[in-house]
Amino acid sequence: MFLLNKQLADDSFFITDLKICHLLLMNNTNYPWLILVPKIDNAVELTDLDFATQSEILAEINLVAKILQKKFRPTKLNIASLGNIVKQLHVHIIARFENDKVFPKPVWGDLSQPYEEQKAQDLIMEIKQLLENNAK
Amino acid sequence: MFLLNKQLADDSFFITDLKICHLLLMNNTNYPWLILVPKIDNAVELTDLDFATQSEILAEINLVAKILQKKFRPTKLNIASLGNIVKQLHVHIIARFENDKVFPKPVWGDLSQPYEEQKAQDLIMEIKQLLENNAK
Repeated sequence: MFLLNKQLADDSFFITDLKICHLLLMNNTNYPWLILVPKIDNAVELTDLDFATQSEILAEINLVAKILQKKFRPTKLNIASLGNIVKQLHVHIIARFENDKVFPKPVWGDLSQPYEEQKAQDLIMEIKQLLENNAK
Repeated sequence: MFLLNKQLADDSFFITDLKICHLLLMNNTNYPWLILVPKIDNAVELTDLDFATQSEILAEINLVAKILQKKFRPTKLNIASLGNIVKQLHVHIIARFENDKVFPKPVWGDLSQPYEEQKAQDLIMEIKQLLENNAK
């Protein structure tokens, strides 16, 4: 049975369960930052998965990217699979803005500014609505 | 006609021209660091390309990942499309090691340590050989 890594769970809010990935909202108001975690036991490197599975993950990356673009109109998306600390395969999809806290530097390693609970829940509801609309 | 961004060209060595991407070696001995640049005019976001083109790029990411794994046996691959500074779409594929210069932090923003010309050329030849062997 697939178990979400504890650190990923602790650092994020659960949004929804897509076909191949869990979708998480990083608990950091500095950037609109979503994470896809493929529900595949022991997956570490995206490129070690079979190509069909990679393609399914890529389709969900596309979906999440489109939602971030629609809602936030970012300057740039940052899409990355790093995993130096948490080995469980996860893909960051982050909306970046020229005036965000560390632009143009990458976001990793900077201190997080947590959401107020209600603001996180509102954003999660909105993202779920966008996912539903996109699926239609 | 596709033109490689000047900053990408200045910061790297050209390795070879794959079907859809140029393959570059980042001029930084701190990490084995390759970059794929799709030869597509005005491409910025991977997820804005059509899915067939994305899949072709993904196949080349797989190829480069396998070559880095074969030659360097890294602790972890870092695969990322950021583009906060250079907008032209490019994908980083970096071999990371627990004892590398900034592990587990991301590599971007750290000062580069350039290759001696001959060492770069030797590595480029070796990567081209691995690409040829992999294509067989």
